[in-house]
Amino acid sequence: MATAVMPQQPTPERFFNAMNAHQQTEALKTAVDMEVFTAIAEGNTTAATIAKRCEGAERGVRTLCDFLTIHGFLTKDGTQYGLAPDTAVFLNQRSPAYIGGAMEFMLSPRSREAFFKLTEVVRHGGTVMGEGSTVAENPEWVTFARAMMPVMRMPSQMMAAELRKGGEAHKVLDIAAGHGMYGISVAKENPSAQVYAADWKNVLEVAKANAQAMGVGDRHHLIPGSAFETDFGSDYDLVLIPNFLHHFDVPTCTSFLKKVRAALKPGGRAAILEFMPNDDRVSPPAAAAFSMIMLVNTPSGDAYTFAEIESMAKNAGFARTELSPQEMGFSRLAIAYV
Amino acid sequence: MATAVMPQQPTPERFFNAMNAHQQTEALKTAVDMEVFTAIAEGNTTAATIAKRCEGAERGVRTLCDFLTIHGFLTKDGTQYGLAPDTAVFLNQRSPAYIGGAMEFMLSPRSREAFFKLTEVVRHGGTVMGEGSTVAENPEWVTFARAMMPVMRMPSQMMAAELRKGGEAHKVLDIAAGHGMYGISVAKENPSAQVYAADWKNVLEVAKANAQAMGVGDRHHLIPGSAFETDFGSDYDLVLIPNFLHHFDVPTCTSFLKKVRAALKPGGRAAILEFMPNDDRVSPPAAAAFSMIMLVNTPSGDAYTFAEIESMAKNAGFARTELSPQEMGFSRLAIAYV
Repeated sequence: MATAVMPQQPTPERFFNAMNAHQQTEALKTAVDMEVFTAIAEGNTTAATIAKRCEGAERGVRTLCDFLTIHGFLTKDGTQYGLAPDTAVFLNQRSPAYIGGAMEFMLSPRSREAFFKLTEVVRHGGTVMGEGSTVAENPEWVTFARAMMPVMRMPSQMMAAELRKGGEAHKVLDIAAGHGMYGISVAKENPSAQVYAADWKNVLEVAKANAQAMGVGDRHHLIPGSAFETDFGSDYDLVLIPNFLHHFDVPTCTSFLKKVRAALKPGGRAAILEFMPNDDRVSPPAAAAFSMIMLVNTPSGDAYTFAEIESMAKNAGFARTELSPQEMGFSRLAIAYV
Repeated sequence: MATAVMPQQPTPERFFNAMNAHQQTEALKTAVDMEVFTAIAEGNTTAATIAKRCEGAERGVRTLCDFLTIHGFLTKDGTQYGLAPDTAVFLNQRSPAYIGGAMEFMLSPRSREAFFKLTEVVRHGGTVMGEGSTVAENPEWVTFARAMMPVMRMPSQMMAAELRKGGEAHKVLDIAAGHGMYGISVAKENPSAQVYAADWKNVLEVAKANAQAMGVGDRHHLIPGSAFETDFGSDYDLVLIPNFLHHFDVPTCTSFLKKVRAALKPGGRAAILEFMPNDDRVSPPAAAAFSMIMLVNTPSGDAYTFAEIESMAKNAGFARTELSPQEMGFSRLAIAYV
């Protein structure tokens, strides 16, 4: 084994890193929960002063901050901690781009429990938590709507700007609206647009409040209930389907897209925003890895490639589907034309 | 927010990666538990054939293998999966260097639970699981001894070779012997050495079996009980203290080193193998991050720097302490001279 010190030799480093990776999740969660990043932004830069501000023990805070430094969230100079640039923007509560709240949804106890059962999930081929996240009136979607709004602001604005290039929209349907940001962003880009937001009743309260706060409340209407069962109405020139299809299998998506197509008027468009891996299913990393989240949390959802989405849309009767060249966050936009 | 697409703009990627990092831990554990790597080594290279061999669902196995490819454990060519070089060496059960069993110790339910309580731990400044891993006759150390032996083989041989340069050892004490590999490696490097292995009685059974299997059983003796309370005897020319001090605070380590020094004969050496971060406490990453594991699992342990170990040894009466230049796995060797 003396050869194990040769630089070309395989090392178990990747194994140890992945085995210990859960520690990063816990450390980040603790730092957000204890407001460590905000404390540092406020000028508490030593373990002792951060500990005081965050009600932690100095030993605990020092070890946590060292760990966060090792993983790039903090800087360290002598005994002084600072925020890395990304951390200052996204994890300081005083920053307008703060997204730390997303952890409440993404690391919900249900989701953590679901991942704990991964072996069972892989044997079963889907979630082992009943209907998983797709259950009716799931209160987790209210958490989602509240927690993920700041994360979705940027991609929703990028999507709205991209769609505006294809013409003004007047009647818009926002499927699984959640926080409502996609419909709201489209409303802001299209001053005459009336937006109909469809989602569970409990979730739509969050969308409505956001629409009002963002000055488009009078053009923002609600269609509560299951997207598969509600009557959407008709004559839409734009239907938004953001981060929705990935929860379901191909036949379900195809039949849903038929319903969407029927609600569109001639010349109308369906805007499908999705984590969209390349055909190899292993790149780009964030979009491809999303498949794992769907395996664990849904009975038969997936991260679909553009080719798969194009095929579903074709089978649903759409004339053609185009992939927008720009990445929007970790997502891509496919536009299906009636 | 349109500026968010500029390449120089901060991105939330690090945040999402760390938030989702726990998924890597679960995926690796599932792959090891289901023998996915071994299955691929045996020639099962598609999701369908791996699923059959591992008793998984094809959808589950495909998503798992894609995820493992994204994280570098597998390769993918079309629909064919292969083992990355490190994976072939360390995670195929047929490989002599297989270390997948280490997960049983490192991801024990107790340790996972301890990490789940990290916020509480940081507030408290140490483990919130009672005495943590340092409790007497903890059966987890038997798991440790069995699971970690393959991981420790290489560093134990490196340590034994390094120590041999300083002269032959005749009477050797192996503190917290565990799997016994450190004492066994020294016994093999020093054909006349009698090795006394100290650890809990239940753990020593593993060390004894390993010593017998490796042909040094007749020179391998047992000292069962607490390292702090047992009589070690005297006239040792070498005392091994591998991965032991990090469980305890500085006063406890110092007083323990006094006991060690008293057991050494004039000219004797104590070999202290430790995860040893640099003085900045944030490099090198693996050694520095070990501090977090000690925070969570012990009342007051830590990853000590060489300067701290040197100071403890000095206060315990050692004449001088030297740092061996070579890294041994993720550890470093400090040699304290009587």
